[in-house]
Amino acid sequence: MRTPIYNISPRLHPRAESLRSREMLSQSLESGLLVPQGLIAYGRGEAFDYLFGERTIPAARIAIRAAAARIILADRPVISVNGNVASVAAKGVARLSKLTGADVEINLFYRNQERIRRISGVLRDAGIRDVLGVDPAYQRRIPELSSERRRVDSRGIMKADVVVIPLEDGDRTESLRKMGKLVIAVDLNPLSRTSKSASISIVDDIVRVIPQMIDQIRYLNRLTNEEIHIIATSFNNSANLRSVLSYLTKRISRLSTKRQGRK
Amino acid sequence: MRTPIYNISPRLHPRAESLRSREMLSQSLESGLLVPQGLIAYGRGEAFDYLFGERTIPAARIAIRAAAARIILADRPVISVNGNVASVAAKGVARLSKLTGADVEINLFYRNQERIRRISGVLRDAGIRDVLGVDPAYQRRIPELSSERRRVDSRGIMKADVVVIPLEDGDRTESLRKMGKLVIAVDLNPLSRTSKSASISIVDDIVRVIPQMIDQIRYLNRLTNEEIHIIATSFNNSANLRSVLSYLTKRISRLSTKRQGRK
Repeated sequence: MRTPIYNISPRLHPRAESLRSREMLSQSLESGLLVPQGLIAYGRGEAFDYLFGERTIPAARIAIRAAAARIILADRPVISVNGNVASVAAKGVARLSKLTGADVEINLFYRNQERIRRISGVLRDAGIRDVLGVDPAYQRRIPELSSERRRVDSRGIMKADVVVIPLEDGDRTESLRKMGKLVIAVDLNPLSRTSKSASISIVDDIVRVIPQMIDQIRYLNRLTNEEIHIIATSFNNSANLRSVLSYLTKRISRLSTKRQGRK
Repeated sequence: MRTPIYNISPRLHPRAESLRSREMLSQSLESGLLVPQGLIAYGRGEAFDYLFGERTIPAARIAIRAAAARIILADRPVISVNGNVASVAAKGVARLSKLTGADVEINLFYRNQERIRRISGVLRDAGIRDVLGVDPAYQRRIPELSSERRRVDSRGIMKADVVVIPLEDGDRTESLRKMGKLVIAVDLNPLSRTSKSASISIVDDIVRVIPQMIDQIRYLNRLTNEEIHIIATSFNNSANLRSVLSYLTKRISRLSTKRQGRK
């Protein structure tokens, strides 16, 4: 299906973005915002990004638009934030939250009060007034999860109908789905458990996704609710992931031919 | 071409190895052995390793054997070591050096005396008596390189005919090739400039490569020089990389079919 896409941001220079993100992550490690595992995870994302050509591929644009539609239609959308997201995309999350009214909730795999404090500081500096997932009084546990990530905020993810989880782990994604949430994942690995189990899997870099999502929301806001509903429900995640994988294998073949050509 | 492979180590449990490596890298970061960029690079390797199924693929076995033959036939083989290699494979490098008489030289992209001191400490603890690349009196510069990595030891890489470079950057690989060195790279990205420009590119995890290389050297040492020579010269790096890429695309297709099957 060929679908026209409107209002996409001009492409930023991919290498400049990548270098800037790396620099920000190194600083975040020093300031305690990030744990070493977060840097390794970022590197895994970089490898996939490299294979995709460090740009938003067509299938990801379709997923971003469907996600934008779901966020508009949601009663209680929540954006889940961890150390990596806060490091590279705090301002983008703030803009998205302001535009949609989505709450922002901190969720960490390696959780401690110092990290929570630092991450909520970064989010507040970016302009988010009420950061959820901080106050222990509202802490609840979601079933079937043993890690620290089982903790959710009773005012946030616990009540949410749509949860945006950039850079999330597979266990938590599956748990949120079992709780009946519509889960929008942003993950550069199209084969990860997160991508496989999310309702909408955006296989792209979070730094590129947010401005495009904002553009899409602005565009969709001019349509009727019925039109938005059609865009939201006509999205098929399995088919979209197949399209991503087909793009990936084609691109690897093309890159390998290029290599020979240069010899 | 089907080639029998002998004396390959039994496969270690891949996930256990991967978790152990991550743990070692986090510790190395704390002790100053590693820089944050090293963790990101490790993550990139992990993503490719995941796509390859976290095991040595057939094409890599062929490359390891050709590399083993080149090391045996070398007059002055040198193993180049950076922070990542010292963190995950110091003991393996020591064993390989002892078996082959290859010198070990430290080469860092982010070079400072403190890191050099720490890395040489780790290598000495692993049993390597003379670590090159440490004494400034023997420091020389290789042409066409602007980074700190241009520094080489006049007793080591400067004089070497065969250089083993695990986890190296593309610029340096190309410079070493221009200097007429036979370069053996270990890099999980088959499309990297390092893999493209090396004489022999082993697309596999360094932790798995070293024991297999040691086994191959022990096996080849029982052959005649002429037989070893045939194994060394019959290796075609472009053809081998094509085989790696073909394996990669087939595996992604297989993984994507599996995903559907599970649905």
